[in-house]
Amino acid sequence: MNPFTDRARDSVAALGEVALLHAIRDWLGDAAPPPPWGMGDDCAVVETGDANPLLATTDGVVFGRHFDTTTAPSAVGAKLLKRNLSDIAAMGGHPGPALINLFLARNTSVAWLEQFYLGFAQSCLHYGTRLVGGDLAQAPDGVFAAHLTLLGNPGRNILKRTGAKIGDALFVTGDLGGSILGKHLDFIPRLPEGQWLARHRGVRGVIDVTDGLAKDLAEILPPGADALLDLTTLPISAAARKFARRETRSPLPKSLAPQSALVHALTDGEDYELLFALDSAADTPALATHWLKKFSTPLTHIGHISPAQNTNPGADRQLRDAATGTLLLPPGAHGYEHLR
Amino acid sequence: MNPFTDRARDSVAALGEVALLHAIRDWLGDAAPPPPWGMGDDCAVVETGDANPLLATTDGVVFGRHFDTTTAPSAVGAKLLKRNLSDIAAMGGHPGPALINLFLARNTSVAWLEQFYLGFAQSCLHYGTRLVGGDLAQAPDGVFAAHLTLLGNPGRNILKRTGAKIGDALFVTGDLGGSILGKHLDFIPRLPEGQWLARHRGVRGVIDVTDGLAKDLAEILPPGADALLDLTTLPISAAARKFARRETRSPLPKSLAPQSALVHALTDGEDYELLFALDSAADTPALATHWLKKFSTPLTHIGHISPAQNTNPGADRQLRDAATGTLLLPPGAHGYEHLR
Repeated sequence: MNPFTDRARDSVAALGEVALLHAIRDWLGDAAPPPPWGMGDDCAVVETGDANPLLATTDGVVFGRHFDTTTAPSAVGAKLLKRNLSDIAAMGGHPGPALINLFLARNTSVAWLEQFYLGFAQSCLHYGTRLVGGDLAQAPDGVFAAHLTLLGNPGRNILKRTGAKIGDALFVTGDLGGSILGKHLDFIPRLPEGQWLARHRGVRGVIDVTDGLAKDLAEILPPGADALLDLTTLPISAAARKFARRETRSPLPKSLAPQSALVHALTDGEDYELLFALDSAADTPALATHWLKKFSTPLTHIGHISPAQNTNPGADRQLRDAATGTLLLPPGAHGYEHLR
Repeated sequence: MNPFTDRARDSVAALGEVALLHAIRDWLGDAAPPPPWGMGDDCAVVETGDANPLLATTDGVVFGRHFDTTTAPSAVGAKLLKRNLSDIAAMGGHPGPALINLFLARNTSVAWLEQFYLGFAQSCLHYGTRLVGGDLAQAPDGVFAAHLTLLGNPGRNILKRTGAKIGDALFVTGDLGGSILGKHLDFIPRLPEGQWLARHRGVRGVIDVTDGLAKDLAEILPPGADALLDLTTLPISAAARKFARRETRSPLPKSLAPQSALVHALTDGEDYELLFALDSAADTPALATHWLKKFSTPLTHIGHISPAQNTNPGADRQLRDAATGTLLLPPGAHGYEHLR
């Protein structure tokens, strides 16, 4: 049977990422446990038979998607590790050992690969993880993909995507948008911040922002809830503003309308910041005060979770302007979609 | 910097797999611990901070290398899991949870992928493992690669590749060669056999035969040792004999000289059998007797480890006919080489 099809409508591209992931879950059936033991959170929680479970996550870097010929190979190696560390951070964990899968064309440059590994190794030593296993498979010429599986040790409390409730305050670390101008490579995974949040009562609904705040926020909202965001406080990055200005000045084709800095902040992705909800009964100013004493990473109270305006079953969970109640993005505009 | 090079001599193909793996180990430096905690055995042994360590391994299936359009997609899914289970078996372990990386072209057929996952899921349930995490990345059209990372729980004793000594008897399970005619898909990972061997005193130098007996035997021989094989007992598979007969009959080009069934058994690879050494002080007949009571899988005493004839430093560790002392393969003929 041929793995590939000439009929576009029979392809995974026609199905789209979201429907494909649902289909895969269906096909796996009992072979895939629910989160937090299975897929659906930033890491899986692996019971070891001992007192302490492990965290496990996997993520990769692919030529032409996560980097290109302008990227320093050492930065690609570092990015491979840091993408996975960001998932460990979102569960409040500490990094453990890693395994790599290299899918390598025969025409890969040895000099490039050396710099890739040196960058990867330097990051491993910096973040206290080690590479304990790997596999090498031959790819067609011009293809480079590296996937990493990273284990981690959780603290006593494991942060999860679930648990956020209507009324919860919403927080995000750092700033958002325009990561393509540099941050997608030079970000710092929020490990100490995540570990600290895991020890803080009332913190729940935690995720790392990789596909854009709009898409990732929808992952933590409970059913029947919208997010009301305070646009006056939303930490829009300088890069998002710069990107928006560039687009406005350049003669873009009609299909590529210039986007506002706000849209960039909500949908660009690869921010690698932590987004979380805080129980409304918790002491919000105290959290902010303690954070300021502990971290130089900005923390912003960006809004809260409210009952959904559109209560039709199956309706998208939406982002609204807290001041006016209007939608912040057109329906369907939801950050980075794979397989597009 | 461009990951690919037009100058053949600067490419990983020119370097070759063995030198590339050495280079990678160098580049990683302190970021890669020695085996059994790091690369170099069938699995890595991961200390968890608790009493029991974990095993971790990773392996993949790639279109055009591990399967083609004639392969049933459900068999590809099963193979992905079983390749990794065979590594767990070689350490005497029990399967744990798995994470998958899918490198998927937009033109992948949904119907094909469904059968792939159904075959994978059925194998997961059969062998008692579950898929707990994954990642999906977009590949160029016509490319399909799936990599799995599998965790495992070792028994009280962990089998390792190291420890074999001159004088040890050599054993292999099942039969060898010609796996391309079917066994590369329908093999059974030797999990109960590996778990049993881990409880048996004197068993050491254990590896699963994936790159051909010649190449994999060299991995367990101590320095300064050759393997003397008894050709009258070597379990050459019916498939290896059939393959050799086919080659002799067909008008092959000169560059593809027909190979004997023996050469197929020693170099084809993808046998997924267990090869191990047994301390000469151990009771060899007792091991064979207990095995026969317990398993229907054949076990063959194929020879023993002897002092090397060529003691030059850096000389290949070689396979010789125990009866005549002659080399069984020309120097350099060593089973499956990647990146060729």
